[in-house]
Amino acid sequence: MTMKTLLMLLALLCVSSFATGQDALPSWNDRASKHAIVDFVERVTTEGSADYVAPGARIATFDNDGCLWAEQPVYFQLIFAVDRIKAMAPDNPGWMTTEPYKSVLAGDMESLAKQGHKAIGEIIAATHAGMTTDEFDSVVRDWLTTARHPSTGKRYTDMVYKPMLELLDFLRGNGFQTFIVSGGGIDFLRVFAEEVYGIPPHQVVGSSMKTGYEVRNGMPTLVKQVELNFIDDKEGKPVGIHQHIGRRPVFAAGNSDGDFQMLEYVTAGDGPRFGLLVHHTDDEREWAYDRDSHVGQLNRGLDEAEQLGWVVVDMAQDWATIFP
Amino acid sequence: MTMKTLLMLLALLCVSSFATGQDALPSWNDRASKHAIVDFVERVTTEGSADYVAPGARIATFDNDGCLWAEQPVYFQLIFAVDRIKAMAPDNPGWMTTEPYKSVLAGDMESLAKQGHKAIGEIIAATHAGMTTDEFDSVVRDWLTTARHPSTGKRYTDMVYKPMLELLDFLRGNGFQTFIVSGGGIDFLRVFAEEVYGIPPHQVVGSSMKTGYEVRNGMPTLVKQVELNFIDDKEGKPVGIHQHIGRRPVFAAGNSDGDFQMLEYVTAGDGPRFGLLVHHTDDEREWAYDRDSHVGQLNRGLDEAEQLGWVVVDMAQDWATIFP
Repeated sequence: MTMKTLLMLLALLCVSSFATGQDALPSWNDRASKHAIVDFVERVTTEGSADYVAPGARIATFDNDGCLWAEQPVYFQLIFAVDRIKAMAPDNPGWMTTEPYKSVLAGDMESLAKQGHKAIGEIIAATHAGMTTDEFDSVVRDWLTTARHPSTGKRYTDMVYKPMLELLDFLRGNGFQTFIVSGGGIDFLRVFAEEVYGIPPHQVVGSSMKTGYEVRNGMPTLVKQVELNFIDDKEGKPVGIHQHIGRRPVFAAGNSDGDFQMLEYVTAGDGPRFGLLVHHTDDEREWAYDRDSHVGQLNRGLDEAEQLGWVVVDMAQDWATIFP
Repeated sequence: MTMKTLLMLLALLCVSSFATGQDALPSWNDRASKHAIVDFVERVTTEGSADYVAPGARIATFDNDGCLWAEQPVYFQLIFAVDRIKAMAPDNPGWMTTEPYKSVLAGDMESLAKQGHKAIGEIIAATHAGMTTDEFDSVVRDWLTTARHPSTGKRYTDMVYKPMLELLDFLRGNGFQTFIVSGGGIDFLRVFAEEVYGIPPHQVVGSSMKTGYEVRNGMPTLVKQVELNFIDDKEGKPVGIHQHIGRRPVFAAGNSDGDFQMLEYVTAGDGPRFGLLVHHTDDEREWAYDRDSHVGQLNRGLDEAEQLGWVVVDMAQDWATIFP
């Protein structure tokens, strides 16, 4: 082999490894949604381009339930709360005869649902307050390790969407900072967001109860209180983004009308913007639901996405793989 | 020159450039406080050491007023509010005869102070609410460019402490993530924190009014409201840290009893911890005040620092330079 042949071979190797390296989204089929993402990232990262965005301003926000992990048959955090009610019942004998606990303990989710938001709020308060943040953290961590999804039998943290994990990595690899902006509980999300999504605690925005600071037996302690602090949903999402991130993201992904205002706020900014809606269309590999769903309802988003220039990802068509 | 001599010379050059490179804190005199900082950073960054802290957990929090920039004769944000009242007075003729505006417009700060927290709250509300976050941002930006400190004649952003800027850089250079945790307004701080301190908006924690989201003439808009959202002072600081950062920092710096709970919370954690109090002792180059001061009062901190293992920085003795 001459030196020239060797160099050519090396050059070819480099090119091919570059081409392989470029497909940072292998779980995305070669369709319009993938092209739109890759094109957007290329435009905002090309120095000198009119659409160039400085690294510090490359902020991307992601909803969690139904966008990064599944949300059927109900939000996983509600399953956690129900499991906690069952685990705590022996210490709370009155619950056997008191609503909404009675329905939860009887496994009658239909009756719980009929009791409305107030009942669910009570269940959340009973399972998410009155303990230290460290205690809550460890309870959630244990649950995530042991609990299994009722129909798939998987761990909840294995029910994350592989294409979205790739998207998070792809954005970070291109200088983006990725945030979760979820209606779910901020303290709940932070237990697994770093390990599962590569998103550190300070880049998680979510709903919360108030927290109190006290020195207990000489130990400084943070205690989760019953009083609601913030609901990070709908109009709350742009507010939560302002409060925690302090600047308008250039990229936002969601899947329900709870994300409408986040995408609206993000994509109304000047310069290049990207709005993405995950549309649950795959009844075989995941679930199919939108306009009439009791979780992740998507109505306005489907009606207005095209006009607003948002990319609607068709899970069945656009994703080669769903779960890792 | 033999090859051996050359290598020895190169080795010496490397050593000396390493030694120079090591003094990342040139504005700090060669005294105990500097040694404690350098020693701490060395311990937590030495892999295999019992005190090693993984990069993600290297979180450092800094108070702002009196810790990163000066706070005399009063908090600079209050001077901003007073300047705004004056600028807004022509559009609010009633203020000439209504307290607390009347005192502010007459330049009678003593009378304003006598009217207490409620009066100051009203001044803050009048100058910090009822506008969009973008409008507020631009008002603060203009003020920082044009306003000058009453006694030094400097821009407020030039009244930052050079030794603390070096400390921020030194920590970041050693894998720390630096945050501001201030009683000041989060939206006010974020206007200059990135440029002046290298701290991006999402790493600023502060006090806030509530924010509302609305679509005004088709434009998604965030509006600052009159209602108080959060006071990031005293017990509020550990709560703000939990809310925004979501894990316990290993390093905290402050200068007043408003920082006591932050330092208490941070330094009570397991493993290596660092608590730092800036003590204003330099009446010539800055100001000297502590136990009886109306701003930055430091009583409990001075009483308990030694027992709690906190480092008290004596500005007059420990800092070779104060302002850049």
